Amino acid sequence: MKVLIMSADGFEDSELLCPYYRLRETGIQVEIATPNRGTIQGKHGYVVTSDMIFESVKPEDYVAVVIPGGKAPEQVRLNAAALTIVKHCMQKRKPIAAICHGPQVLISAGLLEGKNATCWQGMRDDLIAAGAQYTDKEVVVDGNLITSRKPSDIPAFCRELMKLMVS
Amino acid sequence: MKVLIMSADGFEDSELLCPYYRLRETGIQVEIATPNRGTIQGKHGYVVTSDMIFESVKPEDYVAVVIPGGKAPEQVRLNAAALTIVKHCMQKRKPIAAICHGPQVLISAGLLEGKNATCWQGMRDDLIAAGAQYTDKEVVVDGNLITSRKPSDIPAFCRELMKLMVS
Repeated sequence: MKVLIMSADGFEDSELLCPYYRLRETGIQVEIATPNRGTIQGKHGYVVTSDMIFESVKPEDYVAVVIPGGKAPEQVRLNAAALTIVKHCMQKRKPIAAICHGPQVLISAGLLEGKNATCWQGMRDDLIAAGAQYTDKEVVVDGNLITSRKPSDIPAFCRELMKLMVS
Repeated sequence: MKVLIMSADGFEDSELLCPYYRLRETGIQVEIATPNRGTIQGKHGYVVTSDMIFESVKPEDYVAVVIPGGKAPEQVRLNAAALTIVKHCMQKRKPIAAICHGPQVLISAGLLEGKNATCWQGMRDDLIAAGAQYTDKEVVVDGNLITSRKPSDIPAFCRELMKLMVS
């Protein structure tokens, strides 16, 4: 069972590291896809090695995707291959977990129309403009879609992600 | 059910934040005790608010303690009240989970004599000098004592901590 984390430079460190370790705690394999080869660095300086670029991802190999926040999603959303990956997951009803600015990627993929979701408050109006029903809650689950607002929501975000992983 | 995290300025950010969020994911209340009132800042800049100073902790209120690494344990180990807390936990067989430099606190409390344990490699010889049987493994469990080496051991560290929490 493999999960894909989709990120880039400027990720919110705890929003990548905590779900990464949480998934691996239960024996799930986690791979990290990025716009470029090499490493990415978080806002707080953590360095993470990329397993592959988005163009090399085979979406059918993964049971779920996680999109951490920070500045990274503004790069991820510009990558056509990244948008193809999340569209595949939505079509196959695989869990998509996006936190903070992570939902920016889902907006660019056109996946939020009519969905219940949340996000970092600074991008709330973009989420609403994309057709989502915004709620200011620590986590919002709509089918396979899990969204949270900020690092302190990580406990609820991981709880709902793990629930969908075993269901 | 309450767990106490014992730390100070210079903590290894992921080693505090990930167990903190992991415990809260399952509804466990987590409080953070420090040498001084106010906030503490991690090596990577995360700021965490202290719930109380060590002298104000009532050890009997907690079911387990977690000691993250970084530079923080070198301050924690100098605090007599902090050492009293970990001695209480050892006497009552409550889980004590220490990662990276966290075991420095257990050395100063005199709790490692004859115990199986691990730690950050740079302090390995101190662990051995304190009478512990050192093993270079991602996690070592000896009764109520859980130790790990470094941030990438967090999945194993949290897995064993959560096992002892429910047992």
